[in-house]
Amino acid sequence: MKAFDQLTAAQQKEVERQLQLYMTGAQEVIPPEELKAKLVNSISTGKPLKIKLGLDPSAPDVHLGHTVVLNKLRQFQENGHIVQLLIGDFTGKIGDPTGKSTARKQLTDKEVRHNAKTYFQQFGKVLDKEKVELHYNSNWLKKLNLENVIDLAGKITVARLMERDDFEERIALQKPISLHEFFYPLMQGYDSVVLESDIELGGTDQHFNVLMGRHFQERYNKEKQVVILMPLLEGLDGIEKMSKSKNNYIGIDEHPNEMYGKTMSLPDSLMKKYIHLATDIELEEKKQLVKDLETGAVHPRDAKMFLAKTIVRMYHGSKAAENAEQSFKTVFQENGLPKDIPAALWKGDRKLSIIDLLNKLELLPSKSEGRRMIQNGGVRVDGEKIMNVQTEITVKQNMIIQIGKRTFVKLKTDE
Amino acid sequence: MKAFDQLTAAQQKEVERQLQLYMTGAQEVIPPEELKAKLVNSISTGKPLKIKLGLDPSAPDVHLGHTVVLNKLRQFQENGHIVQLLIGDFTGKIGDPTGKSTARKQLTDKEVRHNAKTYFQQFGKVLDKEKVELHYNSNWLKKLNLENVIDLAGKITVARLMERDDFEERIALQKPISLHEFFYPLMQGYDSVVLESDIELGGTDQHFNVLMGRHFQERYNKEKQVVILMPLLEGLDGIEKMSKSKNNYIGIDEHPNEMYGKTMSLPDSLMKKYIHLATDIELEEKKQLVKDLETGAVHPRDAKMFLAKTIVRMYHGSKAAENAEQSFKTVFQENGLPKDIPAALWKGDRKLSIIDLLNKLELLPSKSEGRRMIQNGGVRVDGEKIMNVQTEITVKQNMIIQIGKRTFVKLKTDE
Repeated sequence: MKAFDQLTAAQQKEVERQLQLYMTGAQEVIPPEELKAKLVNSISTGKPLKIKLGLDPSAPDVHLGHTVVLNKLRQFQENGHIVQLLIGDFTGKIGDPTGKSTARKQLTDKEVRHNAKTYFQQFGKVLDKEKVELHYNSNWLKKLNLENVIDLAGKITVARLMERDDFEERIALQKPISLHEFFYPLMQGYDSVVLESDIELGGTDQHFNVLMGRHFQERYNKEKQVVILMPLLEGLDGIEKMSKSKNNYIGIDEHPNEMYGKTMSLPDSLMKKYIHLATDIELEEKKQLVKDLETGAVHPRDAKMFLAKTIVRMYHGSKAAENAEQSFKTVFQENGLPKDIPAALWKGDRKLSIIDLLNKLELLPSKSEGRRMIQNGGVRVDGEKIMNVQTEITVKQNMIIQIGKRTFVKLKTDE
Repeated sequence: MKAFDQLTAAQQKEVERQLQLYMTGAQEVIPPEELKAKLVNSISTGKPLKIKLGLDPSAPDVHLGHTVVLNKLRQFQENGHIVQLLIGDFTGKIGDPTGKSTARKQLTDKEVRHNAKTYFQQFGKVLDKEKVELHYNSNWLKKLNLENVIDLAGKITVARLMERDDFEERIALQKPISLHEFFYPLMQGYDSVVLESDIELGGTDQHFNVLMGRHFQERYNKEKQVVILMPLLEGLDGIEKMSKSKNNYIGIDEHPNEMYGKTMSLPDSLMKKYIHLATDIELEEKKQLVKDLETGAVHPRDAKMFLAKTIVRMYHGSKAAENAEQSFKTVFQENGLPKDIPAALWKGDRKLSIIDLLNKLELLPSKSEGRRMIQNGGVRVDGEKIMNVQTEITVKQNMIIQIGKRTFVKLKTDE
């Protein structure tokens, strides 16, 4: 293996360029000098690096939070490296042996393949599918017998495993840890041994698990992977990590208008983070935009519109982004209505209270939510704000019901 | 299943008799009421109970310490129950994956079978071989795959495993525990699941491991085994647990004279324990003997001679026991010599110092040990005590060298 000093000037420059690119936006690189050494080796030999990302096959709905690592993977692909998507189907298929965890639902082989395909389709919006290897860890994990498992378990201590944050916490609270739970990090580490990954990516919440790959590769006398931990993206609430269960997410398959509108509802404080982690624009452009925001050279609303348009463009193309922006302007800036209001066929009573109308249209999760929305002034009928839950509405053809800022529905009667 | 009350009077009496027999001498029975219920069931249905004893295949030298559990097993056999000897060959064959433990030497299949045979031969001196099932746990453990292992591990908590004394101690001392070490109790427990054992025997030092069988049988929806823990037998030093490594043991394959002599060297304080745990005499006879000792109706020396003769008789038969007693009396009570003194061919110098003579005969582990023995008056040549290490000895045909109380050698010269 060559040292950095032995490279040509052009190669050295390329190493430095890629190193800076990969480090940018990462929360932590463990350790940077090994990443540099791997780049030196790859650039001098022409051999691409293998970048692993592990995926849970049970939750294939991809949102902007996931794209933080995907965008980083894309950078590696653009420089000729190979992405290893690892579908953790083995654990998915065995489920939770204690039956306690509803999160660990047992999946059939068919479900796993379907979910993996769904991931792959969605990831195709960010990644170059041609430079992706798809791996299923059941291929090797199902072959392990008790002797292999004991051998694997002999390569790590109990104390090391108990350092994982959630284990430490449960021990402190005297909440039980089932022994099988110790196996998930072991398996994740063993996957890297089998895949001979050079780098593994993960969110900062994956710190412990992703380091397992390094640990076990070393114990199996392999070259250790470098770990790149990406920051977690807060969701629309500006506080919690973006997740489907928190309902604070922007899904990459959502309608362009919804995506645009949701982005516009982000707190200003998150803008810089989204610009850096959730867009594909050039590093220099990102830096300029952030700088202009700080100096006030650009208005936050304009920057946010640019961000929203960029995000829509990334997942739906330029035309859709243009339309979404136009639609948003019509509704919220000219106080008009969006162009494409969904229609709802109305077959019920022509006269009923607003609360019953909302309830029958199923526009809100519950009657109490509807009541709250009305009382907060969030409901309009043909542009008129309705403040009393008992207000009687006479349903008419093309009557427009608006809930909150972005939900519209146009009633179609039988006539 | 019948309740005790539903049995005939004769059956009830038999349950009580066996229960008392099995409880006697045991340190702990967990729990006694389940042992009784199992006896009720066995006696009412005629179905024998299955009594498990696990054996480490790496150390097949059987001494009196082992016979404490064997004697208990023998009691079960005498009442028609079945003994399950479980050879833990799976762990023996995989050895220690960390390579750190010299105790866990990796054994070949051939060695395991050889050791198991050796056990079986020696155990045959106590047990009725016809009522013994021999099981090798590799038969089922080698078939377990990772999914089965995770399922097994899901049935126990980390906290429960850490309760084992040696784990607790190592955690307190911050000494590392390799994760694979958690598997030994799991495997021991799983063996009971497979064997559907009714009872498992062990020494009190096996408390934790033997309870694993109960734990896992319950988690696999099987009837739980009862655990019988036998006291540990102190060795000849009267302090430490009898073990080969402590050199304080009486091996069941030892020469009758050696066995008799070693028993006579026991501290008086251990006599009652040996009578109860290491002999096969009737319970009533044991009780009487202990009582006679306490009241002074029998002299401790006579009781010890009875004990020694009983032990020799158990492993070598009545004739050998008679001879061993006679031999002992000749040497130690009539101050004469034993009948069968081993001969040593002497080819060295005819004149040399006593210390060099002892050294060349290799009767003691070191020269310094020889020196100590001489100075303590423990060495005789043809009956004459030699107190000076430099005393010159002229070797003669049939010269008798005596070291300590029981080691004799007769020199044979070339003439």
